[in-house]
Amino acid sequence: MKIHADSPRTDETALPVVHLRRPRWGDPETPGELPTAAAALVGAEGSEQGEDQQRGVAPDDVVLAEPVIPAAARSALVEALGVHRVTDDHRARIDHTRGYSTPDILALRSGDAGDAPDLVVSPGSHDDVLRILEICAVHHVAVVPFTGGTSVVGGLAPDRTGFAGVVSVDLTRLDGLVEIDEISRTATLQAGLRGVRAEELLRAKGYTLGHFPQSYAGAGIGGYAATRSAGQSSAGYGRFDEIVEGLTLATPRGTVTVGTAPRSAAGPDLRQLFLGSEGAFGIITEVTVRVRPAPEHRVFEGWRFDDFDSGSDALRALAQDGPMPTVLRLSDETETAINLADPDGAGADDDATAQGGCLVVVGYEGHREEVEARRTTTGRVLAQAGGLALGTGPGEAWRTGRFRAPYLRDPLLDAGVLVETLETVTYWSRLTDLKAAVTAALTDTLTEAGTPPLVMCHISHVYPAGASLYFTVVCPQADDPIAQWSAAKIAANDAIRTTGASITHHHAVGRNHRAAYHDEIGELALAALRAVKQTLDPEGVCNPGILL
Amino acid sequence: MKIHADSPRTDETALPVVHLRRPRWGDPETPGELPTAAAALVGAEGSEQGEDQQRGVAPDDVVLAEPVIPAAARSALVEALGVHRVTDDHRARIDHTRGYSTPDILALRSGDAGDAPDLVVSPGSHDDVLRILEICAVHHVAVVPFTGGTSVVGGLAPDRTGFAGVVSVDLTRLDGLVEIDEISRTATLQAGLRGVRAEELLRAKGYTLGHFPQSYAGAGIGGYAATRSAGQSSAGYGRFDEIVEGLTLATPRGTVTVGTAPRSAAGPDLRQLFLGSEGAFGIITEVTVRVRPAPEHRVFEGWRFDDFDSGSDALRALAQDGPMPTVLRLSDETETAINLADPDGAGADDDATAQGGCLVVVGYEGHREEVEARRTTTGRVLAQAGGLALGTGPGEAWRTGRFRAPYLRDPLLDAGVLVETLETVTYWSRLTDLKAAVTAALTDTLTEAGTPPLVMCHISHVYPAGASLYFTVVCPQADDPIAQWSAAKIAANDAIRTTGASITHHHAVGRNHRAAYHDEIGELALAALRAVKQTLDPEGVCNPGILL
Repeated sequence: MKIHADSPRTDETALPVVHLRRPRWGDPETPGELPTAAAALVGAEGSEQGEDQQRGVAPDDVVLAEPVIPAAARSALVEALGVHRVTDDHRARIDHTRGYSTPDILALRSGDAGDAPDLVVSPGSHDDVLRILEICAVHHVAVVPFTGGTSVVGGLAPDRTGFAGVVSVDLTRLDGLVEIDEISRTATLQAGLRGVRAEELLRAKGYTLGHFPQSYAGAGIGGYAATRSAGQSSAGYGRFDEIVEGLTLATPRGTVTVGTAPRSAAGPDLRQLFLGSEGAFGIITEVTVRVRPAPEHRVFEGWRFDDFDSGSDALRALAQDGPMPTVLRLSDETETAINLADPDGAGADDDATAQGGCLVVVGYEGHREEVEARRTTTGRVLAQAGGLALGTGPGEAWRTGRFRAPYLRDPLLDAGVLVETLETVTYWSRLTDLKAAVTAALTDTLTEAGTPPLVMCHISHVYPAGASLYFTVVCPQADDPIAQWSAAKIAANDAIRTTGASITHHHAVGRNHRAAYHDEIGELALAALRAVKQTLDPEGVCNPGILL
Repeated sequence: MKIHADSPRTDETALPVVHLRRPRWGDPETPGELPTAAAALVGAEGSEQGEDQQRGVAPDDVVLAEPVIPAAARSALVEALGVHRVTDDHRARIDHTRGYSTPDILALRSGDAGDAPDLVVSPGSHDDVLRILEICAVHHVAVVPFTGGTSVVGGLAPDRTGFAGVVSVDLTRLDGLVEIDEISRTATLQAGLRGVRAEELLRAKGYTLGHFPQSYAGAGIGGYAATRSAGQSSAGYGRFDEIVEGLTLATPRGTVTVGTAPRSAAGPDLRQLFLGSEGAFGIITEVTVRVRPAPEHRVFEGWRFDDFDSGSDALRALAQDGPMPTVLRLSDETETAINLADPDGAGADDDATAQGGCLVVVGYEGHREEVEARRTTTGRVLAQAGGLALGTGPGEAWRTGRFRAPYLRDPLLDAGVLVETLETVTYWSRLTDLKAAVTAALTDTLTEAGTPPLVMCHISHVYPAGASLYFTVVCPQADDPIAQWSAAKIAANDAIRTTGASITHHHAVGRNHRAAYHDEIGELALAALRAVKQTLDPEGVCNPGILL
């Protein structure tokens, strides 16, 4: 939905580095304010209810269990890292508890910090990480890697059953740009480097990573790699797993370094075994990625299509036959309508927006001449597919507002509104069926529960063979909103798997998608991955219960 | 080096499906003839010596060991497949012995078929393959998958130590185009389908696979997948590992199917674990790949650069900033000179070719308008980088002759000339050092042995971050040419690893590169892959000694 679009802090080169403090999102200087129009649309009762709920249990008042770490483990960690790098401080434990899914936020607001780590440790080097893993393996303590803490799939909430404690390994001291190879156009980045800071360091040298997920305000390089992140500009710059040239993984058994060459026929591509491993095989400490020259020019524009299917056909034409813009996304009719209903809205031609339909946002970045050439050719494809050019207004509105959506969730939750997202990906030939099945699952489940939802959807990433679908669900909160969402999510997961799609396009598996993931890959492939884990992490201390 | 370029059989849409019959390459109706100029250049003494050596030991006269397969295994295989699908026929065993490296050819010519399988079996379905694997696991018989048999790295010569026999699983009955999904632009192909036939089937529907390795005359889909094949048009159509959307793997423990969606954040990318697995985890029986519309137009042209480094810089500019042609390769000074020395030669402007330098071949395929646009922009980049346009002559000469190079090796070997190739890949910043190191290693070793070589090199594949180097070595044969080459190859491998490059760009690991591969990935990654093998193939019968 449309949010304020006038802040310079929403530009990816001007955002501050934010250390997220639970339960609310982002930079405290950029508070989320609920637009009246949005509140009306979702049937929220106004700001007073919000103010009541906003308080919930304050983070400082949440009751934490006593940390249960074995004394020998703790003293070994202190000896390895120094006393100031090992803490069980209340606020540190809270801020490393779970991630930023709506259930995570609701749980913490309700005073439940049952997944809090016992200790938070701050390594300053790869060798520190190795040492932490050794110590935790010896003492059978579970280890959770932490970069930005923005997981929305329970990736930071390991299963502590049978373990002597849980240690959160906060990598944010590993925040260096190690090296730029300007000839090969690669950069080596430490895992704890925040995306915002990585971009800042690279821009200073004339480059860009081009990786802008919606979690950009908080997320870090290690998290991007461990979860196969995809950014909003992945059409042009590539998904994170596509731009990784090499990585270093610390495991309880030692170090694995992969990425000898850009491409090779030397056996399985081990990069693709460790990307997406979500801390279950060890902790990624360093990543070498491709970088590009920082763009000198950019244009973002909007196009209108009559309906989702014709818009989707247009995106498919671009993905299969080119050219590819830098950003390419299609909102369905509902998402488009909500967006346009905002009085601050699109700034497009009134006649065009009044017709409804579906909004396509197309962005181009690069050298001026190349941008204009690509824009012309892309425009020709879109027009031929039935698109109506809306000019740069809706494109710029989306671009400048794109990182503020997560800020909106907090005031919506305050106002008694449940809002959550989920996403999936499939082949083009199954896309329509997938969208219908997931929409029906969400709508039916929440309607039966007495809280009929608004289900919005967009395509955010396209490939020659298929596309992702990203759903946003908004409805009134029931008495137990965690259970309310859980039922809807289970129904959506079933619809996804029944349609043969993947359980996640870019949110990863974590703990929340584990069962569906196992169904997706099958018993034998799962056994193979467990064998890899058993080899690298014989004690099973690496993020137990996540992924595998 | 330049070979005859006038046969319609050299076009990828007009080649016959060839079942290679050892030891010579390819279609018997396209005999290799040694151009006089080539013979003179490499110091061969003429055709009479060739005729003597050509005879060697005729395949039918090679003495094979008695097949040692256990009777119970054999009868179980006969029961599963039918008596006509299980054979120890002399010629069948010979034709499934090793692959097409120069040492492989020389060994067979010398009468050594020590790596011959005991049995050749021909499954007609995925379930047949599963059954074969089960039977072989029970009886501890080693299993070699066979599609085209064109390995140049010993991928078809398992280590039989400790096994009760070796069975070659000839997949060529699995030769169907299972399905085309025209919306998603994917095709599902059985593993035994030859590349030539796959292209023929796809062209009939208006599509192309666009995958044309130099082994195209013989190789098959399963081999492409198992070895991460890269074709000559991979700049435009992608490496084989980049166009695979899904695959089915038969293992002794059952079936693994991967590829739920084009891209996903659901854990490690399992496709990339099984691509490049070279039969060590099981047998790939089916692959789903992306296809493209068959090109309506193509242009191949030549460009001249003063030297390898300036040509390499031009290729890097295209790989990093675009546009990418469909084919892009750069021959070094020596390879360019040999090519141009052919009196049938390039057909380019005489003044330009007389200047020496380095030849770049650039090919464009696609829609006419798009081809011309890409050609114009590419030409601008090449000219700006110092390239001199040579017109379509050298491009077309390369295009029409490109599949005939392997035919040339047989008459060269006949003529007492040793000819072999090797390849590697690294990042752009290390490319010059790598080329120098490998060239020196080959030159020094063979010169010290009294057989100074001609070492030619080209870049055949480029990526944003790096490029491949493909070396062709030609010298007089010593008394023991296998030992002669082995010494040179070991020195080259050492140079590759010392420079930090990958031991192979597209030839794979097989048995020949195994030690260097283990050095490349390290002990811990190797242990992880062995754990995968142990899970899927607990008896270790799948292509033992290959890769792992």
